[in-house]
Amino acid sequence: MLHLRKSLYRILETSAGKRRGISLAFNLVLITIITLNAIAIVLHTVPEYNQRFARLFTDFELFSVGFFTIEYILRVWVSVENEKYHHWLWGRLRYIFSTSALIDILAIFPFYFSLFATDLAIVRILRLFRIFRLFRISRYSHAFRLIQNVVKEKKEELILSTMLVVFMLIIVSSVMYYVEHPAQPDNFSSIPATMWWGVTAMTTVGYGDIHPITPLGKLLGGVTAIVGIGLFALPTGILVSGFNEHIREHKTPRRKVCPHCGKEI
Amino acid sequence: MLHLRKSLYRILETSAGKRRGISLAFNLVLITIITLNAIAIVLHTVPEYNQRFARLFTDFELFSVGFFTIEYILRVWVSVENEKYHHWLWGRLRYIFSTSALIDILAIFPFYFSLFATDLAIVRILRLFRIFRLFRISRYSHAFRLIQNVVKEKKEELILSTMLVVFMLIIVSSVMYYVEHPAQPDNFSSIPATMWWGVTAMTTVGYGDIHPITPLGKLLGGVTAIVGIGLFALPTGILVSGFNEHIREHKTPRRKVCPHCGKEI
Amino acid sequence: MLHLRKSLYRILETSAGKRRGISLAFNLVLITIITLNAIAIVLHTVPEYNQRFARLFTDFELFSVGFFTIEYILRVWVSVENEKYHHWLWGRLRYIFSTSALIDILAIFPFYFSLFATDLAIVRILRLFRIFRLFRISRYSHAFRLIQNVVKEKKEELILSTMLVVFMLIIVSSVMYYVEHPAQPDNFSSIPATMWWGVTAMTTVGYGDIHPITPLGKLLGGVTAIVGIGLFALPTGILVSGFNEHIREHKTPRRKVCPHCGKEI
Amino acid sequence: MLHLRKSLYRILETSAGKRRGISLAFNLVLITIITLNAIAIVLHTVPEYNQRFARLFTDFELFSVGFFTIEYILRVWVSVENEKYHHWLWGRLRYIFSTSALIDILAIFPFYFSLFATDLAIVRILRLFRIFRLFRISRYSHAFRLIQNVVKEKKEELILSTMLVVFMLIIVSSVMYYVEHPAQPDNFSSIPATMWWGVTAMTTVGYGDIHPITPLGKLLGGVTAIVGIGLFALPTGILVSGFNEHIREHKTPRRKVCPHCGKEI
Repeated sequence: MLHLRKSLYRILETSAGKRRGISLAFNLVLITIITLNAIAIVLHTVPEYNQRFARLFTDFELFSVGFFTIEYILRVWVSVENEKYHHWLWGRLRYIFSTSALIDILAIFPFYFSLFATDLAIVRILRLFRIFRLFRISRYSHAFRLIQNVVKEKKEELILSTMLVVFMLIIVSSVMYYVEHPAQPDNFSSIPATMWWGVTAMTTVGYGDIHPITPLGKLLGGVTAIVGIGLFALPTGILVSGFNEHIREHKTPRRKVCPHCGKEI
Repeated sequence: MLHLRKSLYRILETSAGKRRGISLAFNLVLITIITLNAIAIVLHTVPEYNQRFARLFTDFELFSVGFFTIEYILRVWVSVENEKYHHWLWGRLRYIFSTSALIDILAIFPFYFSLFATDLAIVRILRLFRIFRLFRISRYSHAFRLIQNVVKEKKEELILSTMLVVFMLIIVSSVMYYVEHPAQPDNFSSIPATMWWGVTAMTTVGYGDIHPITPLGKLLGGVTAIVGIGLFALPTGILVSGFNEHIREHKTPRRKVCPHCGKEI
Repeated sequence: MLHLRKSLYRILETSAGKRRGISLAFNLVLITIITLNAIAIVLHTVPEYNQRFARLFTDFELFSVGFFTIEYILRVWVSVENEKYHHWLWGRLRYIFSTSALIDILAIFPFYFSLFATDLAIVRILRLFRIFRLFRISRYSHAFRLIQNVVKEKKEELILSTMLVVFMLIIVSSVMYYVEHPAQPDNFSSIPATMWWGVTAMTTVGYGDIHPITPLGKLLGGVTAIVGIGLFALPTGILVSGFNEHIREHKTPRRKVCPHCGKEI
Repeated sequence: MLHLRKSLYRILETSAGKRRGISLAFNLVLITIITLNAIAIVLHTVPEYNQRFARLFTDFELFSVGFFTIEYILRVWVSVENEKYHHWLWGRLRYIFSTSALIDILAIFPFYFSLFATDLAIVRILRLFRIFRLFRISRYSHAFRLIQNVVKEKKEELILSTMLVVFMLIIVSSVMYYVEHPAQPDNFSSIPATMWWGVTAMTTVGYGDIHPITPLGKLLGGVTAIVGIGLFALPTGILVSGFNEHIREHKTPRRKVCPHCGKEI
């Protein structure tokens, strides 16, 4: 029993040492199931496919939840093999409240909850939660850890520039509301409504559903777009330089050797 | 009396030494009131909330103005504690005309003025001015000082690229007016009206309310968008590199050693 | 015969040594024909020109295919002059399956195939393939090799950020679908349909054919646009820095000296 | 006479040495007249202002042309004071064909030509040419020289990335034409018409007057926008880094002195 637990731990968590082949195969199967889940959730909303493959969608959902549930139980069982979660009870409880285990439970919980839910609105929201199964893939993704690190490192600058964007958005939308409201009382009906214009103008999306029509409003709209580009460039530039730094640091710093004397330089 | 003035000065302005705890608490209260003011001003324009919470909005406005007025009077009273504004009359007058005191008066002045205003248009504009209460928060914000410094440092380059943008906007809009006016006399009715198109094209907002329809106009519109991206990248790039420089300088104060005498500089 | 093959090889492939003048002239003719082909393919779809110059288009097509066919046969014939493709049969076969020779055959193959095709749909697709004749110019273009190198060098980072964009797109579109579907069942009819909105919002194109109208949807739409700008800045920033590095490296070949022995490396 | 020519030369061209004050005043007057001309040309197209200030516009146009004409004649007269244009005839002729003198003549020529033009279409185009008077200001602008230098330095990279953009535009528009033409024969009527979509998609302007509606077209449209952002980032990034390099080089490289030993480091 203990031997089985050790083997299972190696397969599920370490991907190293003995059982490395099986571990790799298992992880590939898991990633495939997660990806298929994402595709199923997306295609399931297309009425045409939903009717035609109704049975297939239900079966696959049952299979996925079953697979994820067994996997989750096994992970909790073997978690004590990890030194961090050594104690048979407290260790397991601490594992259950670790980020990756919480994501795992979030991926299956909506299904079980929806069995008891009778309210359609809640079932709808629970269905939406299934999309977060996709986050299970973050366990494997190098990219998520990179993003996490960059955001953590540049936290201060990002908060600062986000504050500036929000501040600017409030000021600009307030002024625009007073300028355009008399001319377009329906579109610019209140400052919160004007903020929707503010966001589409500052991000240069410009859907065209709401835009100034008075000369003063157009002038203000033009200045907003120009300043918005500059303002949004800040978090962007900060993120890009953060990534570049990270990537440079983590790339193997090529050891160079002088071809004449053989010493490292 | 003098002792009270000293204590109050410490609470209102320094946030250091004795009374540091009270000063911190006071500043938190002030920031909260300013933030609530911003929320009130924004929500106040939503007809639904305005009717339902009419009394609450009025009361909060009265409370805020009262609080800000007392705070302003106290700040003027204690300002002589600062060495810069030592003289009991001239010092206080100089304090009143300092940037931060002017922002403070701008936050309360519209209320008092609107008591005597009978013209509705003026009352509307005065109401708009209330949004500038948000600027009071700049007293606390590290971000505003950073922006100010970067803009000051890169002033020359920013003016230069703004000039280029304006220049390009006039040329492009003039040519576009002559190209599209015969085909769309309503949309491209004059060069100033065409400038609205010019701004939305060069900033890539593109609301869709005005766009060229003739082949020549489309060609010019395409070139404008392409050149516009390049042109707007200039101030953006300048700002981003300015911020990066500033942040880098203030983060790791590189220890430098003189190569001649070996001492740190 | 062997002498002729050698001369032809020099003209067609090397652009160096003897026959350099003729080689240059031939390549200029080839680039001109390719460029004229691109113009013909583009203008050929304008009904007005298609009717007026129908004969000219047909004749030019026949001439181009003839020219490209003869050129292709000659290139295969002389390919054995290259050391890489020395063997009279295997060498030629290997040349035929090289990238540039495959592009060459792709440029003429659709014409011959369409002679036997009776299905109009297939003829339409074959006509579309003619546009890939433009890729023949890549043989001469320094730019394509640069792009290729940068993409190869930054492959890892580009895959990583593309994954992030796709991931974000799925999550955002799924949530938006559940938020906006009840309000706009026609526009946000399914998650794949919502993804079209997701792409236009995250790239800030914003055609305006589909956009959120509920307050919650607008809030999500605004956050999506803001995060989208940051997210799309990553591959962009990676590419730009990749290009800058490449261009810098190839411009100033910094002379480096080994600090131990003083010799250049 | 010669003395007057010398004085005039100093006023008009050098802005240094004796007469520096007068030279500065003259240049300020000139810049003011050019700026007023730009404003007049722009406002002149607003029907309302055109009717109300018709007389003022005509008078100011006459005054401007008169001023520019006299100034031009004087500049040609004194040009021989410059060593480069020493010869009384050939020197003056060479001055007349210098860039800045050509811009000067372009600013007044349309007026004189329009006196003899009877065709309204030609008069319209000549009126358009007046906007190029704005370029006269480039004589004073530091910014134009900077742009010119950056573009010259990065010429190769800019041509390369422009080529890529055009290439991509042709390929994408051709494929999109074959995909969307059957569904929207009016909007995607030909490849050149589809190119208008291509430009608005790749620059992310997105007016909304033309966009794909078929699933395949939307997929292609999404990929185009994403790749377009990356592609347009290239010339942008090149320009920004070019400007940064230039500005850094031309900023006074602060001489630093060690505070301990006084030697420069």
